[in-house]
Amino acid sequence: MNNVAPYLIISADTHAELPTERYREYVDPEYREDFEAYLAEKQAAAQAGGFIDEEFAQTWFDEHGEGIAGGWDVAQRDKELDGDGVAGEVIFPDADAVTGVAGAPFGAGLGQSGDLDPGRAMAGARAHNRWLSELCSHSPERRAGVAVIPILADVDAAVAEITRAADAGLRGGILIPVLWGDYPPYHDRRYDKVWAACQDLQMPVHTHVGPAPSAEYGEHLGIYTTEVRWWGARPLWFALWAGVFERFPALRWGATECGAFWANDLLWLMDTRFLREHSAKKMSRALEGDLTMPPSAYFDRNCFIGATTTERRELARRYEIGVPNMLWGNDYPHPEGTWPNTRKWLRHAFWDIPIDETRQMLGLAAAEIYHFDRKALAPLVERIGPTPDDLGQDDAVSIPKWEAARQAGRHWLTDTDPLADLVEN
Amino acid sequence: MNNVAPYLIISADTHAELPTERYREYVDPEYREDFEAYLAEKQAAAQAGGFIDEEFAQTWFDEHGEGIAGGWDVAQRDKELDGDGVAGEVIFPDADAVTGVAGAPFGAGLGQSGDLDPGRAMAGARAHNRWLSELCSHSPERRAGVAVIPILADVDAAVAEITRAADAGLRGGILIPVLWGDYPPYHDRRYDKVWAACQDLQMPVHTHVGPAPSAEYGEHLGIYTTEVRWWGARPLWFALWAGVFERFPALRWGATECGAFWANDLLWLMDTRFLREHSAKKMSRALEGDLTMPPSAYFDRNCFIGATTTERRELARRYEIGVPNMLWGNDYPHPEGTWPNTRKWLRHAFWDIPIDETRQMLGLAAAEIYHFDRKALAPLVERIGPTPDDLGQDDAVSIPKWEAARQAGRHWLTDTDPLADLVEN
Repeated sequence: MNNVAPYLIISADTHAELPTERYREYVDPEYREDFEAYLAEKQAAAQAGGFIDEEFAQTWFDEHGEGIAGGWDVAQRDKELDGDGVAGEVIFPDADAVTGVAGAPFGAGLGQSGDLDPGRAMAGARAHNRWLSELCSHSPERRAGVAVIPILADVDAAVAEITRAADAGLRGGILIPVLWGDYPPYHDRRYDKVWAACQDLQMPVHTHVGPAPSAEYGEHLGIYTTEVRWWGARPLWFALWAGVFERFPALRWGATECGAFWANDLLWLMDTRFLREHSAKKMSRALEGDLTMPPSAYFDRNCFIGATTTERRELARRYEIGVPNMLWGNDYPHPEGTWPNTRKWLRHAFWDIPIDETRQMLGLAAAEIYHFDRKALAPLVERIGPTPDDLGQDDAVSIPKWEAARQAGRHWLTDTDPLADLVEN
Repeated sequence: MNNVAPYLIISADTHAELPTERYREYVDPEYREDFEAYLAEKQAAAQAGGFIDEEFAQTWFDEHGEGIAGGWDVAQRDKELDGDGVAGEVIFPDADAVTGVAGAPFGAGLGQSGDLDPGRAMAGARAHNRWLSELCSHSPERRAGVAVIPILADVDAAVAEITRAADAGLRGGILIPVLWGDYPPYHDRRYDKVWAACQDLQMPVHTHVGPAPSAEYGEHLGIYTTEVRWWGARPLWFALWAGVFERFPALRWGATECGAFWANDLLWLMDTRFLREHSAKKMSRALEGDLTMPPSAYFDRNCFIGATTTERRELARRYEIGVPNMLWGNDYPHPEGTWPNTRKWLRHAFWDIPIDETRQMLGLAAAEIYHFDRKALAPLVERIGPTPDDLGQDDAVSIPKWEAARQAGRHWLTDTDPLADLVEN
């Protein structure tokens, strides 16, 4: 049965937004005038060009224009998700990752940072969140919308918007800025009100890849591509070492589309420092701070990775990262995702992964974190979900293949040799 | 013969310095008054305590006091290196990683950054470099001293000091600041004069782990331990993407004691962006900049990792990183290194590594980069070097064990499956 039942697939990373000018009616009246000025600025900036290859952009729109409209059109959106075999989705802002002409008002999307004007940032976030909750009201069982929340300048206003967003049905949680600019970093207790609200309302906190200190890079886009995932994930270890997950044991925290390749090393590094292996012996007791468990224990309980288009080399590390901590996503409708060829990508990435683990990473882990109603989704899954057979999987091959690696697990905790999987084979 | 010849071991990461007040006579006369003020400041700061566990520090000094004096006393130093089986060494500043009471004048050591007063920073560096060249004049065949060079504020003064240091016999190359503060990052052409001088004089450029933006961390030392290696390595990809190794094809660049665990992912990430695999297709042509080869090709030609106390999980990645790019070190006399138990550590880490590869990582790669005279060192190696047998090595076991991983190599360039080594076994 397990071998033939189709997969419940939840994309833990999709994007939706309106073309910017269509946000007009969602903007608070006192910011409407500002909004017109912002539209003009944005138009001018787009003409100046940016980090996008123009030729690629032209081809992308020529070939995928209809599907891209699913960034805001819900009927088209469902058609595209169905085509990819994706039953549920966790929706972030910024559907247009190519031209950047669309986008939530006042830059209140993935790129929000401490550099934005606080009033405008919150007005833009509110406009986007209002529209997003409308989008999610269509087939709500499929959609967990993530509210954009600028938490840096005004913590109380942030908590108010989190509460409003939860009431409006945005059960995907919140997106916070990756870069805090001149505001206090996320170890600061001033943000505890935000974490408390998110814990109470069962709203996962997210950072999402995108922002980086680009002013340092000059014209060298390669530096950006090399570092940007690190900047996106960084807030997680600020929160962890500051005891946020000790104080808020039911809070969930995700790093989305930052890759997963670094996560096993991060856990190894943090655990071995905490456990004072040789190289950390000299550190003062301030190292542990308020933590009562090794960092990987908080990671397992509180954190997850929106791993998006998982790479083969990332899947190979899943026993150190934790299988249910890796949430696959198709990044629809971004060109760097797997849409519209997800079925092919899944076969390529997962063909030799055990079926139960695949179920976790493709959907069950996300269903638990975001409270998807699996029963409500069952008929859709039956209709569109690919089967293990479609992915070319065979547990008779896959399970023995990985057995040694599975048993080694986190070798630094199990006292096995880190090369045990190689040794055993 | 290969099985019984002792290893030429070069520690690519040791530390030496005087207790601070003994630098007095090496300081430029015009900075002597400043120096007395600096001594007083330093004393006061030390009393205030820091990130070190006091109890550990006490035990460390009680047990290793004599050996620690080898930080400046050359006879003691040779005795300690001999005990560890280390014939040659690459010497960085800051021998005292525990109390921080010692250290080159004006903070001109590992911790130098853009925040230092430019005049004082250079005066401190000159004082240290003068003393270091004296130290290296004892058994010079064993010692490659690394000159501290503040390159941020005054590039011409930096070039002058590099030239002077090379003339004074410091063939270990130069140490540059990890953090540029408010100065331009290392992609800036203003530093080309420095890279040109280092290429001409065959002086490798180094960054060394230590500095990080600590003001962001509050009291949370865990954040520091998690990030600090990344900050130490970061300048490498700024230089690489900016075409420094395209313009200076004979320049060598090392990241020392930053770990090696990240290097295979860094190369995979940079190469796949450069080669425009799926996720990078949308990026503008500014991505490649002036590069004519994939980043890993520059890494192989120009870069290396001072991998210090290589971990088992790092050695497992050596075919992606490049075996001759990983230089082992004992970090003498730091407590986080392998001294005084290097022989035991080597056996633990290298017992199943092929002998030819071990020769590369333990000494031959460093001998080539730093121009050690292997003939001159031969009698010493004969006397102190451990043999493959001492490390418990047996090529009949080791070579087949790694064969599949070796053949897979950098799978993103060889078009093999990243899990090929597992598949084959």
